[in-house]
Amino acid sequence: MKKIKKVVLAYSGGLDTSVIAKWLEDTYECEVVTFTADLGQGEEVEPARAKAEALGIKEIYIDDLREEFVRDFVFPMFRANTIYEGEYLLGTSIARPLISKRLIEIANETGADAISHGATGKGNDQVRFELGAYALKPGVQVIAPWREWDLNSREKLLAYCDEHGIEVERKKGKSPYSMDANLLHISYEGGILEDPWAEAEEDMWRWSVSPEAAPDVATYLNLTYRKGDIVAIDGEDMSPAQVLTYLNNVGGENGIGRLDIVENRYVGMKSRGCYETPGGTIMLRAHRAIESITLDREVAHLKDELMPKYAKLIYNGYWWSPEREMLQKMIDESQEPVNGEVRLKLYKGNVTVVGRRSEDSLFDESIATFEDDAGAYNQADAEGFIKLNALRLRIAANKGRKLD
Amino acid sequence: MKKIKKVVLAYSGGLDTSVIAKWLEDTYECEVVTFTADLGQGEEVEPARAKAEALGIKEIYIDDLREEFVRDFVFPMFRANTIYEGEYLLGTSIARPLISKRLIEIANETGADAISHGATGKGNDQVRFELGAYALKPGVQVIAPWREWDLNSREKLLAYCDEHGIEVERKKGKSPYSMDANLLHISYEGGILEDPWAEAEEDMWRWSVSPEAAPDVATYLNLTYRKGDIVAIDGEDMSPAQVLTYLNNVGGENGIGRLDIVENRYVGMKSRGCYETPGGTIMLRAHRAIESITLDREVAHLKDELMPKYAKLIYNGYWWSPEREMLQKMIDESQEPVNGEVRLKLYKGNVTVVGRRSEDSLFDESIATFEDDAGAYNQADAEGFIKLNALRLRIAANKGRKLD
Amino acid sequence: MKKIKKVVLAYSGGLDTSVIAKWLEDTYECEVVTFTADLGQGEEVEPARAKAEALGIKEIYIDDLREEFVRDFVFPMFRANTIYEGEYLLGTSIARPLISKRLIEIANETGADAISHGATGKGNDQVRFELGAYALKPGVQVIAPWREWDLNSREKLLAYCDEHGIEVERKKGKSPYSMDANLLHISYEGGILEDPWAEAEEDMWRWSVSPEAAPDVATYLNLTYRKGDIVAIDGEDMSPAQVLTYLNNVGGENGIGRLDIVENRYVGMKSRGCYETPGGTIMLRAHRAIESITLDREVAHLKDELMPKYAKLIYNGYWWSPEREMLQKMIDESQEPVNGEVRLKLYKGNVTVVGRRSEDSLFDESIATFEDDAGAYNQADAEGFIKLNALRLRIAANKGRKLD
Amino acid sequence: MKKIKKVVLAYSGGLDTSVIAKWLEDTYECEVVTFTADLGQGEEVEPARAKAEALGIKEIYIDDLREEFVRDFVFPMFRANTIYEGEYLLGTSIARPLISKRLIEIANETGADAISHGATGKGNDQVRFELGAYALKPGVQVIAPWREWDLNSREKLLAYCDEHGIEVERKKGKSPYSMDANLLHISYEGGILEDPWAEAEEDMWRWSVSPEAAPDVATYLNLTYRKGDIVAIDGEDMSPAQVLTYLNNVGGENGIGRLDIVENRYVGMKSRGCYETPGGTIMLRAHRAIESITLDREVAHLKDELMPKYAKLIYNGYWWSPEREMLQKMIDESQEPVNGEVRLKLYKGNVTVVGRRSEDSLFDESIATFEDDAGAYNQADAEGFIKLNALRLRIAANKGRKLD
Repeated sequence: MKKIKKVVLAYSGGLDTSVIAKWLEDTYECEVVTFTADLGQGEEVEPARAKAEALGIKEIYIDDLREEFVRDFVFPMFRANTIYEGEYLLGTSIARPLISKRLIEIANETGADAISHGATGKGNDQVRFELGAYALKPGVQVIAPWREWDLNSREKLLAYCDEHGIEVERKKGKSPYSMDANLLHISYEGGILEDPWAEAEEDMWRWSVSPEAAPDVATYLNLTYRKGDIVAIDGEDMSPAQVLTYLNNVGGENGIGRLDIVENRYVGMKSRGCYETPGGTIMLRAHRAIESITLDREVAHLKDELMPKYAKLIYNGYWWSPEREMLQKMIDESQEPVNGEVRLKLYKGNVTVVGRRSEDSLFDESIATFEDDAGAYNQADAEGFIKLNALRLRIAANKGRKLD
Repeated sequence: MKKIKKVVLAYSGGLDTSVIAKWLEDTYECEVVTFTADLGQGEEVEPARAKAEALGIKEIYIDDLREEFVRDFVFPMFRANTIYEGEYLLGTSIARPLISKRLIEIANETGADAISHGATGKGNDQVRFELGAYALKPGVQVIAPWREWDLNSREKLLAYCDEHGIEVERKKGKSPYSMDANLLHISYEGGILEDPWAEAEEDMWRWSVSPEAAPDVATYLNLTYRKGDIVAIDGEDMSPAQVLTYLNNVGGENGIGRLDIVENRYVGMKSRGCYETPGGTIMLRAHRAIESITLDREVAHLKDELMPKYAKLIYNGYWWSPEREMLQKMIDESQEPVNGEVRLKLYKGNVTVVGRRSEDSLFDESIATFEDDAGAYNQADAEGFIKLNALRLRIAANKGRKLD
Repeated sequence: MKKIKKVVLAYSGGLDTSVIAKWLEDTYECEVVTFTADLGQGEEVEPARAKAEALGIKEIYIDDLREEFVRDFVFPMFRANTIYEGEYLLGTSIARPLISKRLIEIANETGADAISHGATGKGNDQVRFELGAYALKPGVQVIAPWREWDLNSREKLLAYCDEHGIEVERKKGKSPYSMDANLLHISYEGGILEDPWAEAEEDMWRWSVSPEAAPDVATYLNLTYRKGDIVAIDGEDMSPAQVLTYLNNVGGENGIGRLDIVENRYVGMKSRGCYETPGGTIMLRAHRAIESITLDREVAHLKDELMPKYAKLIYNGYWWSPEREMLQKMIDESQEPVNGEVRLKLYKGNVTVVGRRSEDSLFDESIATFEDDAGAYNQADAEGFIKLNALRLRIAANKGRKLD
Repeated sequence: MKKIKKVVLAYSGGLDTSVIAKWLEDTYECEVVTFTADLGQGEEVEPARAKAEALGIKEIYIDDLREEFVRDFVFPMFRANTIYEGEYLLGTSIARPLISKRLIEIANETGADAISHGATGKGNDQVRFELGAYALKPGVQVIAPWREWDLNSREKLLAYCDEHGIEVERKKGKSPYSMDANLLHISYEGGILEDPWAEAEEDMWRWSVSPEAAPDVATYLNLTYRKGDIVAIDGEDMSPAQVLTYLNNVGGENGIGRLDIVENRYVGMKSRGCYETPGGTIMLRAHRAIESITLDREVAHLKDELMPKYAKLIYNGYWWSPEREMLQKMIDESQEPVNGEVRLKLYKGNVTVVGRRSEDSLFDESIATFEDDAGAYNQADAEGFIKLNALRLRIAANKGRKLD
């Protein structure tokens, strides 16, 4: 067994990580530092302090990371119009590298030689936490209790609490789902969702009303972009976290951002997940709209061709890698002219772009018009354009090459 | 000027192509063959016969191509989950290669040495028509009147009719939009849409009700897939065109498939377009859902990485090219196991996947479960997996390499 | 410890795998089946029979797989112009999937529940063997002794032989390199090569003379291609293995095919390797030459863009995967017209293409000529071609967009 | 006809561009400014002044652009390991954007409203010149006399000279090839090369001796890299143009850098070209070698996957485009750690890397070693790594999915 002196634990204050805190002390005879972050999950983080103290923890870190999360992780990702497997907005994936970063910073501050987390051995999150940790502090030890211990059920965890005098709330009617939340989304896995044919139940969803329950009148929004990021809504300047909070609220009220998919995990299995991403769903659509008038065609296409790779890097846990940073450099470079306004209509689950304008627009009405363009575009050029683009095809056909 | 003996004209029966028919005869002193296709645009094609006869046309082709269109063009394209620039479902693009093919077949049957069409010199359609024609008959002459004549307004066209005794309906309240329709979609360009900031007017849309006007109760659908194509709806076998017709109807009734975008044309300009693609919008979502349980992860990712290129080929007019066929071969190969059922909920503009199942499913509940998996998956394997994936990152960090 | 009944061992007859055979019996108390393949490594395989018998093995498989190796693995790979990291011709990588396939076939024939191999825990070969085995027989057990035992030096292996009465040749002057050979190449790792600054010594190389020692007169070769594969040399029909054997001989005599690189292993480390691939080096160059006149430009470019991914799949051990097969389908499709002849000059390490011709050539002298082309190509078309390709750049510049 | 006031002509001083200068004045009744650049083509540029003066030109620009050419164009391109269609080092392509840039700068300085060049209507160079010009000055007029006039043979050009009193040297034994040279390469097209089966004649080649004629003793070189560029040779600091000049000399003496290919032009035809690129051939190999020890694996692979696209951009003339700049940003970012030394052996056409070292090396001997690594690498990790990478393949096989 690894020799550990001090370990920094990603601590939520809930049952699992409370057991882990105790189990780490007992199993490794080491000091435990807890780290609890407010990433916008919608629960108070301050109560975690008392719980950690009750467990006898001496070094307790509680951080509000919401602005950093949106500014340095969510926004850069949305500059790439990132979607994993055509559907998933990467709400869980994008929060992990920030947690890894803080775990390692705290390890460095407190002289810890290990980190620990409550992710299971089947999921993507263990990979994301640990790849980030190793990339930032290559000699760190990682303890993943779920891969080591035999406390593999809620009953065993509760028994462990009884045995070790850990006080936990024993809620009745605990959610049957495994959930994760941060300012970008909330996710649901497990329970009846393990059958991909079963429809998710209405009372599972927590952040959004159903389209049916949303208002009967549409809401219009004006988003202002600077270098690819939203900096104001309806004319009011907002910080990154304020933007996302606002969009989550208005999106959730309008029934926007529910998703139900089967995805391919990095560890090799398929899993069913449901997600609510109200603000992110709005941002993706709106960002494409502002890009549609400000980006050069080939720049946009290059971004589109690289997007699946970029999404996969984030999904798989390679935020902290030189290849992600290399791609990010290129993406950020492309966003210089992505300035302007997008007007949106939100209505019962629908996000519709109804207008976009920009001082950096490349849309040229004088050329695009169906009316007389006063010679701005010479239609005769099209003949040569087509002829030379067809040349290789014509030569091939002349030589007897057949198309199916 | 080119010497032309006989020309096959893509003829709609409307003002523009009626003028073109006459203009071709006069300008090139050649015979004109008309070709009118039913691609599901929703207008009768038979009336075109009388109009062509009135123009003195002797060889008149009127074809119902709806099944061929969906079976050989729309369905193969949807196997690739094709979207251009993140939004556009390629409704116009995918119809052009079929028209090119028939124009050339008719040219071969009638001994014509030229083809002609009514597309302007600014758009993509001229490129699509002509690339297809050249690829299939490399020596064909192409006449694109809009690039040659000076009849560049509706007024001049009407004056030409008067002068040459062409009878046309002079509708009052003609639509201010340039429109194109086929079984996959209807498109709108021009008019107030030339200002990308202006919201499209509700009375522009023809195929779908607005989400606001859609029923207050959701509609559920069951789609059955075989090799990536829909072969039955709610248990009833349907032909490809029947499938798309059905989905257009139910989609349109539920306010599904409206799109408002600025896109990048192949000829180099940006243009604003609005589209209604009710059935296609449903098909895209459902196809991803059936693939999500039946495709291998890496196959799915490879498809996703190549999709933008495939979409660009179709958008730019390279359906009839060896590179498109090469990609299609690969895509079709991937669809062998894409069999099963998808259950959808349609409600006021929303298409939600609520279930998917397949005898070819790769979803393995015994492995994915949050419950005890009886050893199907060894969580300890994850440690080695992560450690080796992290190795290059750790070596780099150990050597002093910094991440930003 | 796993319970094993019978194990099929990839057996070379050398020290390591002889020890493994004995160690498997002792450790797992299981039957051992040996499998020895002639892949063109240049050593007799028949002697392995007597050695296996001396170890008490009852089921002994010795196969000549040279034709299958070249026909079904080497040739398909060369259709893709495969190179890993710009340099490596994948000589080791491409032999592994065939060995995996035979191990599993033999396991099925003999009722074995496990396979074993002599690859170390640091290299790529373990990955290639095992991924193939798992893909072909998902329930198979894999025993990789080098990852389990503590016999981690030649001395310990020899001591084990003494202890267990295993007779092995104790060659003096054993090569200081770790080597692997098959009909495509021979490789060298370890020894002084572990210092990437150290030049490989001349006496390391076994298959080729140095360019300095090669003949002073060039050798000319004529290769005939059918569907991308070489089917005749200098007019003489040859089987795949004959082709490669012939090219190895003539290439090696002319000092062709040495390579000295640092490569990135799948397991995460960099390693230095030297390779001799005389025939493969010739084939790569010649295949590009025959493709240069027979492939459509966009087909060729698509192949080039996908090649690095295809090479990585093979390097990493994913020959037996649906994504490799999907790519192969596309590549093979592209090779239909790759027929004709290539003329090469071999001289002291250089492979020079001096001519290529084909009845499927797309080279059109009448168009390409600098002389008068009698109107085959209309130079005026170029203006429109350039103007429209420049349009987006001009619009951007007109709008004030700056290039660096 | 376009109205032109003043035109800047890319002027070599030879027959063609001398005729063009006169023809422009006569045809467009405009002033002509000549621009002659020393790009290292190996001919004096100063004589062009007297020739231009003799033609009555008043504004004459003669620039030595060698350093700028190598520093800002050749070196950035080699950072990407650029090769077009697997063979071509883009020697012609990379010089064009610099000429475009200077033409436009001079047009701006002299108040010219047009540029002109001597490239034909069949080739790539017209595209490269003009795309660059339009991107940098969107309103510029471009005159391409070869696409306009009927002087389509040497005889007609000479007759034009006689008629207009233009003095030109009438060399006997003029080269039968169309040639282009700059510090990166010299190219040959036309003549007997128009038959792709015909071997190039030895006396065609001008910059390199044949491998047969090269010295019998190898030359060793030491190249020092900083951020991906060569900054010293054999310990001596050199400027970019000095580096390339030196490598051309030593490469040419050793028979290095000849190439004979059929390539696909952007205008749609295949053409046969021969090239001598002695220094570039050395640089490509050496750059890959220094990257092999300093680049992260995934960064290197990403570069390799994007390289064909980058090469195509340069070949097709899109140096001055936002997409090329976006890719360049990413490539340059990757080169920060590409520092160190490469040792090469040059011998009769062969460039062999014999050593590479760097303070930024990621090669970790302690991990890569075949000897005991003292626990630096845990071989047991490989099992989990393989097991999880195999998981999707095993699930598929368990579900009955077959591989071919």
